[in-house]
Amino acid sequence: MLILGGAGFIGSNLVKALCASNANVKVLNHGPNKLPDYPTLEYIQGSISDKEVLGKALDGVTTVFHLISSTTPSSSNKDPVADIETNLVNLIGLLDLMKEKRISKIIFISSGGTVYGEPLYTPIDINHPLNPICSYGVVKVAMENYIKMYGHLYNIQSVILRVANPYGTGQSTLKGQGVITDFMYKIQTNRTIDVWGDGSSIRDYIFIDDLISLCIKASTSDIYGTFNVGSGSGYSVKQIISSIESVTGLKATINYMKPRLFDVKSVVLDISETQDKFSWSTQYNLIQGIKKYHEELLVSNNSEQSS
Amino acid sequence: MLILGGAGFIGSNLVKALCASNANVKVLNHGPNKLPDYPTLEYIQGSISDKEVLGKALDGVTTVFHLISSTTPSSSNKDPVADIETNLVNLIGLLDLMKEKRISKIIFISSGGTVYGEPLYTPIDINHPLNPICSYGVVKVAMENYIKMYGHLYNIQSVILRVANPYGTGQSTLKGQGVITDFMYKIQTNRTIDVWGDGSSIRDYIFIDDLISLCIKASTSDIYGTFNVGSGSGYSVKQIISSIESVTGLKATINYMKPRLFDVKSVVLDISETQDKFSWSTQYNLIQGIKKYHEELLVSNNSEQSS
Repeated sequence: MLILGGAGFIGSNLVKALCASNANVKVLNHGPNKLPDYPTLEYIQGSISDKEVLGKALDGVTTVFHLISSTTPSSSNKDPVADIETNLVNLIGLLDLMKEKRISKIIFISSGGTVYGEPLYTPIDINHPLNPICSYGVVKVAMENYIKMYGHLYNIQSVILRVANPYGTGQSTLKGQGVITDFMYKIQTNRTIDVWGDGSSIRDYIFIDDLISLCIKASTSDIYGTFNVGSGSGYSVKQIISSIESVTGLKATINYMKPRLFDVKSVVLDISETQDKFSWSTQYNLIQGIKKYHEELLVSNNSEQSS
Repeated sequence: MLILGGAGFIGSNLVKALCASNANVKVLNHGPNKLPDYPTLEYIQGSISDKEVLGKALDGVTTVFHLISSTTPSSSNKDPVADIETNLVNLIGLLDLMKEKRISKIIFISSGGTVYGEPLYTPIDINHPLNPICSYGVVKVAMENYIKMYGHLYNIQSVILRVANPYGTGQSTLKGQGVITDFMYKIQTNRTIDVWGDGSSIRDYIFIDDLISLCIKASTSDIYGTFNVGSGSGYSVKQIISSIESVTGLKATINYMKPRLFDVKSVVLDISETQDKFSWSTQYNLIQGIKKYHEELLVSNNSEQSS
């Protein structure tokens, strides 16, 4: 298996789980290796845009995990051309090499939060129209379509996972990757939380361990198609803050700001088909997930302080 | 009004119709001016990718017609990256300039034949899922999504026309733009017609005059949204050939070839909403359209021979 973006938030958790079961895993990542020293891991430093490096990384591989994104929903609108020229164009290069090397399976992380746009009904099932209102979502839709097109023309089978908002250990506080991580960091360091809008926006949050268990099932099964991946429940920003307050015992300071035009009001995913097809279910509700995340952060902070 | 691609097949017919009603029209086109000398036409030679030229062309404009494509459905799959880097990236440049110059209306020609992919039901209405299986269709979907996204974020209103297979005077025999033009040219010059598959593929064909009458309505009305534009009727390739034979009185020689994977079996558009909203209907059925096209070709051939 080749994990593109294996050093990122989802990637590092996936690599950990795969290596725990002694799977042979390659990671292609632009930076130097900061992953633990797993015996079955081969780490390749390089860019997905470098055809030669990518070609070598693909040798001997049967399944590719695509977990890379150079943008976030909020950064993407500032420069849609860069969004297109990195994420979309690099995907074509990957698919062309997979076709050439006859690699027949790709697992792609799409975006359950942006591809649908403002929901016409809720919870959002997989057949809901795709009306993205940020470049990140437009590009994810185009990426999904190219993956399916290559599937149709060149027998590359795919599992497209439209993932809601994942959170947990490994998520960066610096890149604005997720509100739970951002809020936890700010509450614990006594910083003010910035909230776009009045805090009523509802999102579907999934704990990283639950997402990884589905990724593992997707990599070992013969089930293909496009699936929603979330908890199936929605929580407002205010509920997220009060949940973190109750788990940590700390009080948040909140700064409410003008809502952003590209934020939709509510996203809750219908995950029933995903549950049925993969015999999968989430093991953590919101409070359980935040609790485990908080405990892991405490352990890692303590070990950093004692080292 | 600025017509991007105003020297092409649809463009030259649109410019003719607009100038006939004395509308002030600008055309931006990469080649030298071959359009007739209309008094209300300003012709600008240059590329849409040249921001300075495009910016000047947009000055004083209230409505933009986007009729440009650097690819065709069959050429697009050979180089999806080029498809993306010309059609999609240039559109972003245009939308950014429209936003900057507060130009609030765009009329965009999308593709009724490729955005839906293999139909799940027929005739295809505007809410049919978008499952394109060629790069041309994937890129058109992404272009539609960016236009709607800029609409949502920056008040650029749009009319997106998902046009079926247009045919008529001005269509090039060289670029593989349409089967009716290709077949008429080959029948009249005694060449063999190449047919991909067994000739049972069904498409929706619209005569250029009918398409132009809708474009004019779209430019003068305050109706916005996404619309199917076709005749609402489907004809097989074999029916097209026999219709041309009956109009021209000539006999076709046909070479049947292996079907192409990116060709869908049948596309017939449901145009009822377009008819209602724009109080528009087609004036030419297939035989009437081919007849008028044939007559116009004879006139133009005669005038070429006598000049």
